[in-house]
Amino acid sequence: MTVLTVTPNPALDLTYLVDHLRPGDSHRVRDVHVRPGGKGLNVARILTTLRVPARVVGPVGGSTGAQLRARARELGLLDSLVTVDAETRRTVAVVSREDGMATLFNERGPELGQAGWARVCRQVTRDLATADVVTVCGSVPADVAPEALAELVRRAAETVPVVVDTSGPALMQAALAHPAVLKPNADELREATGIDDLDDAAARLAERSQGAVVVSCGIAGLRAVTKQGRWSARLPWPLTGNPTGAGDSVVAALAMGLRTGRDWPYMLRTACALSAATVLADVAGEFDADAYAELLPAVEITENPP
Amino acid sequence: MTVLTVTPNPALDLTYLVDHLRPGDSHRVRDVHVRPGGKGLNVARILTTLRVPARVVGPVGGSTGAQLRARARELGLLDSLVTVDAETRRTVAVVSREDGMATLFNERGPELGQAGWARVCRQVTRDLATADVVTVCGSVPADVAPEALAELVRRAAETVPVVVDTSGPALMQAALAHPAVLKPNADELREATGIDDLDDAAARLAERSQGAVVVSCGIAGLRAVTKQGRWSARLPWPLTGNPTGAGDSVVAALAMGLRTGRDWPYMLRTACALSAATVLADVAGEFDADAYAELLPAVEITENPP
Repeated sequence: MTVLTVTPNPALDLTYLVDHLRPGDSHRVRDVHVRPGGKGLNVARILTTLRVPARVVGPVGGSTGAQLRARARELGLLDSLVTVDAETRRTVAVVSREDGMATLFNERGPELGQAGWARVCRQVTRDLATADVVTVCGSVPADVAPEALAELVRRAAETVPVVVDTSGPALMQAALAHPAVLKPNADELREATGIDDLDDAAARLAERSQGAVVVSCGIAGLRAVTKQGRWSARLPWPLTGNPTGAGDSVVAALAMGLRTGRDWPYMLRTACALSAATVLADVAGEFDADAYAELLPAVEITENPP
Repeated sequence: MTVLTVTPNPALDLTYLVDHLRPGDSHRVRDVHVRPGGKGLNVARILTTLRVPARVVGPVGGSTGAQLRARARELGLLDSLVTVDAETRRTVAVVSREDGMATLFNERGPELGQAGWARVCRQVTRDLATADVVTVCGSVPADVAPEALAELVRRAAETVPVVVDTSGPALMQAALAHPAVLKPNADELREATGIDDLDDAAARLAERSQGAVVVSCGIAGLRAVTKQGRWSARLPWPLTGNPTGAGDSVVAALAMGLRTGRDWPYMLRTACALSAATVLADVAGEFDADAYAELLPAVEITENPP
């Protein structure tokens, strides 16, 4: 059985290392990293590193899509990517050697077309038979309605626990499909619900979904509203590093916990530690395995936090 | 008969339009342009727009190379690109809507290997039969020695006029292969010769090559040292715009002039006007055809400039 990660709008992620970033200048790129991107592919990568079999579904097109598929296979991800006409997008992260600062450029991604989306949905249905958890992560193509994403979540949620990490109207519609967990970050939660207080917003979203809501709050850790109770999880000290992919590690940890039936304090502890270990890793979307092991016992879990 | 443009280190050029560029931020890319890049491909593109048949030679590899080849064909360039193992590099130009400023990120490009370079050279030899001018433009892969580039120039120069636009040791070695014209920019000329005075540096390089040297000096126009005399060419007013590709337009104009046996004042006039029309175009590497026609008579040609 595998964790099935669905990425409706994947990307080929390029990371450029430069000496410094000066707007208006011409920069020599010292080093290039190319990796399969989009939140669901990051989740699958983290899981694969932790020896949890992960299968990736999503549309890939054109030569950029072919490159994405090749890289995903090299990393040991199980390949259920669907070839479509639309050329896959790229993202470029420019990292400055001078100060470690990352500057991101995200292509929006192509329209997928009705037929392309239908093929992605059919592939998800096929792979449900061998999945024990499904994650649905990231943005949706411009021509895929929030309701269409919700329909995909609904079909998966009838069979297995589903973790959804998306934003805006897609988040609000996905809630109505009753996934086991919704995982917005604090800004996404406030923006989608229009409620400023995080606990109120999370409670409202949990009511809508009839499931759990886990909110990632950057250095303030995680807050969870579930039927079993409310918790916060955080490290006693602040971290600095590259936050890219930290939210994807939360989703990966939740998926691992759900497939083995762990309780919330355990799931939140692993999610918080894995997320922090991702911030500490040099390359976006990877994690520092030693830091993960060290941070696990340090995570402070609080029931009914203020 | 065609102009044969050789690009030892081509690139897939991505242009990203963003609202503004803020280091450390995450940017949504509003628009993406993808075009075949590297100086020789730009030269061929300008020539093709001017209805001069242009054939492109250079190594292309991997899916980025396949994309480059497909785009080159779409633009009507005659395709003599050579498929090699090494994955073709990319460049990213981030253009800010706020102020029009372009910020460039240039991947260095792969090592080509002995076999890859040998295949490029063989292709040049094959295509010499149908070429009336050859241009050799841009950087060379890290594992191609300056002497190897010079050898390619020498073989072509035995048959047809050759225009070379490169820098550093490759420029100094290419000079010894006696191309008809060397076209460095002012900085490249100073750096390669170690001589600060532009006219002295151009004279020294012309002596070394026994041919002409045309120096592109940005808004100060062009300076030429030839066996027929010394000239400058410039517009009477300054231009602002995107200078990317301006030097490639100089090479394209020189190639056009050489194939039809034009005199130096004519060639420098077209080169100066075409270069200026390139600066005025919205998209890097294209030119404003109306501006070209209007600027031609405005170019000031001075013989024996001070």
